[in-house]
Amino acid sequence: MLAPISWPLPPTGYGPWEMVASNLTEELVALGHEVTLFAAGGTQSSATVVTTCPHALQTWPEPLRSRPRAFDPETGLMEGPPDPRALEELHIATCMERAAQGRFDVVHSHLHVHALVFGRLISCPLVTTLHGSAWTKSNHPILRAYRELPFVSLSNAERQLLGELNYVATVYNGIRIETFDFEPDKEDYLLFAGRLAPEKGPDVAIEVARRAGRRLLLAGLIEPQYQEFFDSQIRPHLDGSQCEYLGLLSQQELAPYYRKAAALLFLINWCEPFGLTAVEAQASGTPVIATRFGALPEIIVDGETGFIVDTTDEAVAATKKLDTLSPAACRENAESRFSARVMARGYEAVYASLIATHGILRHPDRHTPRTRAVRP
Amino acid sequence: MLAPISWPLPPTGYGPWEMVASNLTEELVALGHEVTLFAAGGTQSSATVVTTCPHALQTWPEPLRSRPRAFDPETGLMEGPPDPRALEELHIATCMERAAQGRFDVVHSHLHVHALVFGRLISCPLVTTLHGSAWTKSNHPILRAYRELPFVSLSNAERQLLGELNYVATVYNGIRIETFDFEPDKEDYLLFAGRLAPEKGPDVAIEVARRAGRRLLLAGLIEPQYQEFFDSQIRPHLDGSQCEYLGLLSQQELAPYYRKAAALLFLINWCEPFGLTAVEAQASGTPVIATRFGALPEIIVDGETGFIVDTTDEAVAATKKLDTLSPAACRENAESRFSARVMARGYEAVYASLIATHGILRHPDRHTPRTRAVRP
Repeated sequence: MLAPISWPLPPTGYGPWEMVASNLTEELVALGHEVTLFAAGGTQSSATVVTTCPHALQTWPEPLRSRPRAFDPETGLMEGPPDPRALEELHIATCMERAAQGRFDVVHSHLHVHALVFGRLISCPLVTTLHGSAWTKSNHPILRAYRELPFVSLSNAERQLLGELNYVATVYNGIRIETFDFEPDKEDYLLFAGRLAPEKGPDVAIEVARRAGRRLLLAGLIEPQYQEFFDSQIRPHLDGSQCEYLGLLSQQELAPYYRKAAALLFLINWCEPFGLTAVEAQASGTPVIATRFGALPEIIVDGETGFIVDTTDEAVAATKKLDTLSPAACRENAESRFSARVMARGYEAVYASLIATHGILRHPDRHTPRTRAVRP
Repeated sequence: MLAPISWPLPPTGYGPWEMVASNLTEELVALGHEVTLFAAGGTQSSATVVTTCPHALQTWPEPLRSRPRAFDPETGLMEGPPDPRALEELHIATCMERAAQGRFDVVHSHLHVHALVFGRLISCPLVTTLHGSAWTKSNHPILRAYRELPFVSLSNAERQLLGELNYVATVYNGIRIETFDFEPDKEDYLLFAGRLAPEKGPDVAIEVARRAGRRLLLAGLIEPQYQEFFDSQIRPHLDGSQCEYLGLLSQQELAPYYRKAAALLFLINWCEPFGLTAVEAQASGTPVIATRFGALPEIIVDGETGFIVDTTDEAVAATKKLDTLSPAACRENAESRFSARVMARGYEAVYASLIATHGILRHPDRHTPRTRAVRP
């Protein structure tokens, strides 16, 4: 299991890819599999953990993390912050060298596009969960070059981002249902949970809340590149009474807000390949009002566990008929389709199939060198 | 031959790593070797050229190159400029997959630290010329992890940057001597040629020229991160009469300025692992005044082809005794020690030695997997 190294596993704050990799690893171990987890320092897991990066990239201790790039006459070297690319390369290669030695049956990469280049050099299948990386068009050349490698999509919708890859299955992300308490009695407020980025629609959520005359709580990460968006589009509406920003909350801190929310607003304007918060809300018995985009129509049962809307008007209207939805149906949808166990069973089937067909389907050139002598 | 992909080979403007890779490749072909050159689109070579990157990173056509990162509702994708990391990964892996198939006797990487992670996965030695990458301390973790791989230093001085690597030889960079005409008759001006970065000392060159009462011509690249340095420390001195900035010149455009210069000023304050311009100047019969730093004492014969100085005062004094030096000695030093042919012979010896000892010295784990079956 090749996890990202931006955050330790399980992440205590933001870190959805790490969260999924962590949930999957723990469930696979519980199912009796022998799992080696390649992850950043600080990772906690019941698997065998291999760490080459002493700190996660986002939790690198200060002052090292933001040390300015500058020549130090003392050492004669160009000092500076750690290099994420070099650290990721070392992390990936440490896994791949073991895989090339035949130590694994399968390697599962959650690491963006950067492990693909090793896919033809190891002795076992390399399966990749892209977590939406194909959304970024500059990744397409490298994805196309490795399109014959097996990919798992987080939803059928994710495949729209780049249809030509060799998708071998859709496996929905799974959450640890037990960390979300079911709550049938709701308060009046609406909730936004996610990165405060334009494509996530926090500004649309504010408009809907204002027009519906409801309170809105917002929680999530403000990325540096969207600070200006936050300052100009979000902050002016944070009057403390109707709209309130709670900051970046850990899953544990967020859970009580899910429980009592009348609904989660998920008014994205991009093809989101999954929506972890939409599942976490449903697990808490909370319905979701979501745009008909990306994976949301797959995650929400329209009219039962939420409403899929096409316009802001429809989103406002949906807030008036939340009492027609059953919190129990929301919980049931999350439990039966989006638990970590269900996800692990899904990946188990993928691994089994890849291992079984590895000898037949492998890239024609992939293993020839293993038995060919080095040229004299 | 794994070249960088920042510029096509040979570079027409800046691009010292590409220049060295190009000179080496052409000489090796001339010596009768079969060379496959992995390089960016637009590359010209007598070797077999393999290109995965249609344009060099620095010459990517507009408007694609500076396309802003922004969501395009038309495509549903995050559009933006090309991703240098992903393109480099694809470039490197294309070479390494062939190397893993046993197609090469040796792979020679000029690609920073990023090819090292493949070093234990291919069937032949991977030798790396770092071109000074160890100067940047954030590269040390990955360098240390692969320190047993063979490295070639550009000078004995380069080894000071990170002494613990497995240096198998020092091979000086070589230039195409024939592109620099020897000129014994000099004019009065001094020359600075190189990146206009603090560690290259263009500001020191200006001070020395002013104190010596000599004209100074400056040529070279202004990197975005040093624009402010240029604007505050260099531009105010460009009065058009005493100090003049010629812009970024190609080697061909720079050659006439070398020829007639009284001396090249190379007043660095970092451990420069080599100094191509110091060699190019000498090939033109032009002496070099250089600080006692990095490779310069190895490149310049103090008192014969230039002066090695420890202070600005000494640099000023050196400008007064340039007529004690012989242009012919400068040319002879470049021809006998820093020609592309001498460099190619140096690397030829490195390759031969690595190939001969590959079976014995290879990393203990490196080749075991090739004959081990995949676990059932």
